[in-house]
Amino acid sequence: MKFEVLHTSKKSRARVGCIHTPHGVIDTPGFVAVGTNGTIKSIDNAALHEIGLQLMFCNTYHLLLQPGTEIVRQAGGLHNFIHRKMPLITDSGGFQVFSLAYGSVADELKSRGTKKTGGSVVKITEEGVHFRSYRDGAKIILTPESSIAAQKDLGADIIIPFDELPPYHIAQDALKTSLMRTHRWEKRSLDTHLKDPQNQAMYAVIHGGIDLELRKNSCDYLTALPFDGFAIGGSMGKTKAEMFELLSFTLPKLPVDKPNHLLGIGDLKSIEMCIPLGIDTFDSSYPTRSARHGVLLTKEGDLRISKRENAYKFLPIENDCSCPTCSKFTLAYLHHLFKARELTYMSLATIHNLHFMIQLMKRYRENICEDRI
Amino acid sequence: MKFEVLHTSKKSRARVGCIHTPHGVIDTPGFVAVGTNGTIKSIDNAALHEIGLQLMFCNTYHLLLQPGTEIVRQAGGLHNFIHRKMPLITDSGGFQVFSLAYGSVADELKSRGTKKTGGSVVKITEEGVHFRSYRDGAKIILTPESSIAAQKDLGADIIIPFDELPPYHIAQDALKTSLMRTHRWEKRSLDTHLKDPQNQAMYAVIHGGIDLELRKNSCDYLTALPFDGFAIGGSMGKTKAEMFELLSFTLPKLPVDKPNHLLGIGDLKSIEMCIPLGIDTFDSSYPTRSARHGVLLTKEGDLRISKRENAYKFLPIENDCSCPTCSKFTLAYLHHLFKARELTYMSLATIHNLHFMIQLMKRYRENICEDRI
Repeated sequence: MKFEVLHTSKKSRARVGCIHTPHGVIDTPGFVAVGTNGTIKSIDNAALHEIGLQLMFCNTYHLLLQPGTEIVRQAGGLHNFIHRKMPLITDSGGFQVFSLAYGSVADELKSRGTKKTGGSVVKITEEGVHFRSYRDGAKIILTPESSIAAQKDLGADIIIPFDELPPYHIAQDALKTSLMRTHRWEKRSLDTHLKDPQNQAMYAVIHGGIDLELRKNSCDYLTALPFDGFAIGGSMGKTKAEMFELLSFTLPKLPVDKPNHLLGIGDLKSIEMCIPLGIDTFDSSYPTRSARHGVLLTKEGDLRISKRENAYKFLPIENDCSCPTCSKFTLAYLHHLFKARELTYMSLATIHNLHFMIQLMKRYRENICEDRI
Repeated sequence: MKFEVLHTSKKSRARVGCIHTPHGVIDTPGFVAVGTNGTIKSIDNAALHEIGLQLMFCNTYHLLLQPGTEIVRQAGGLHNFIHRKMPLITDSGGFQVFSLAYGSVADELKSRGTKKTGGSVVKITEEGVHFRSYRDGAKIILTPESSIAAQKDLGADIIIPFDELPPYHIAQDALKTSLMRTHRWEKRSLDTHLKDPQNQAMYAVIHGGIDLELRKNSCDYLTALPFDGFAIGGSMGKTKAEMFELLSFTLPKLPVDKPNHLLGIGDLKSIEMCIPLGIDTFDSSYPTRSARHGVLLTKEGDLRISKRENAYKFLPIENDCSCPTCSKFTLAYLHHLFKARELTYMSLATIHNLHFMIQLMKRYRENICEDRI
């Protein structure tokens, strides 16, 4: 992997760059779509080429349980298995294992408690995490070594070390203990990876929750190791303002010559706030999930397809949109398909929203190049 | 509409023909896919062009309730509304109204009684049928005139007169009474249509249930009227053998210079049995519904994608298949998507099964041309 910074804004830390991977280029700032099981929900990977999605995020945890990474390896790796020619990134599986155990930060903040699948984590040791498959109850142990082995089977262009995701409500001491273990796990992941790099790049995950001192500690420790890039993970507070403050503190502590990635955050407001801080890539299921739930993204804001007024709009979602959906279908038809609960609606809406994100990032890059951000 | 018979087999009544419509040609024998709400479930209409589906069947009953045919008219007709350039056929709405009231023949034979939505028919009069919308409970009256008005709004290439679908278990007298009313309704439908043909063709529906005398009566009455073609509807018995006997009796009573259509029947066995009888087109949701339920059609028979053995098959569904799914994706990947309950599976499977049907009919046409059927 090679990273080039092409331009840094004169007004902020916002920058335009280019990540060269074995499966092609990723322009930054870039949006990364989430295809958990090796497909963006409701659209096939060939259709993604048409709209030019440069990086797709797949989840090792899910692929480990179904179909199993050994099958993907036999298929010649994830690119072959899912018929995708462009770059892929996989995570370590840690996030899902711990989310299922503790519930997500959002669940916790909303006092929803852990999910019904909670309790699937049997125990956490220095070696790794023991859990039960949500599919068949089988006992599985995920360690830094086994996570990297799985990610070698998958063969994504960018991989992520195994980390612990501590709950949001955690005492300072426990958070520090968790961070130290995460650092040891990330080091073990890196060592495993470097024994057989296979042309993959590895991004560290900066942790430390909402504690600035621990975030600094994490940056210091991880940037001293030969990672190819840096992802920012863990809890970033309850509000976008807290996230902004935390990232304003953290970003300057990362090396400017390596790419960075903001894990799991990619709503429009967060992207707008974080680009000036110098974030290079964002992954989020926001645009695809929104599409399925009836929210279409436009330059004038969210459009709810269920609204009655759309029944009579014989125009595309956006007049100037060049996506495959807007070039063929009208709001009236999409409204009808949504009301009739036709699956076809989901594909058409997903294509539009992803295309919207890709074009949005292109406009951000142009604005950075002209020092307007 | 113009119909040409290109070749009739020397061995049977099987024939190869060509129906010319304002939106292009339909080669016969041909398979007609069902897109009830104006889309084949899970695939968009642009994708259908790629596999060359010549005729698509949409349901007036569904489109009348959602989005309403007035909206479709404002959109410039169904072809424009759903972005389909190739031929369309719509039914009268009668079948659905009566199925919901009486339950389908299959429900009746399996003693499943009427569906929960049964009782939606308020009353049947000489004028037409009064029912309640399953969507909002609104009272609706469907008559020969209103059905044709709706089908004029939709603007399909081929339309169907309003008829009554009597239950399977019906006394001879009641069946005859129903047939006489159906004939009066079909005549009223034809008269309404001929006042403003709008370049649409109308197929009569031959009724008479399993009573050969009434079937003959229906053929005699309807073929004397200036319909453009003849569909065969109503109950055709409990078994394929009964259907075969009934159709063997009925087909010779239809004019050879007009196209005929078998309503709602299009499984592989029925097609094989009926082509030698001279059936020109078949509509059925069988291949698309099967796809969604995990059954893939192949020249070696049905393939159940859920079977464990498919997890390791890094080959397309059929090696010699040229469909968009087989040219890109493997059984192992389709198996994975099915197990992971990804909607993408449904689109990929539907495309393959429809392509299979289109190729199957092409082979039938070749075989008829060479007098092998």
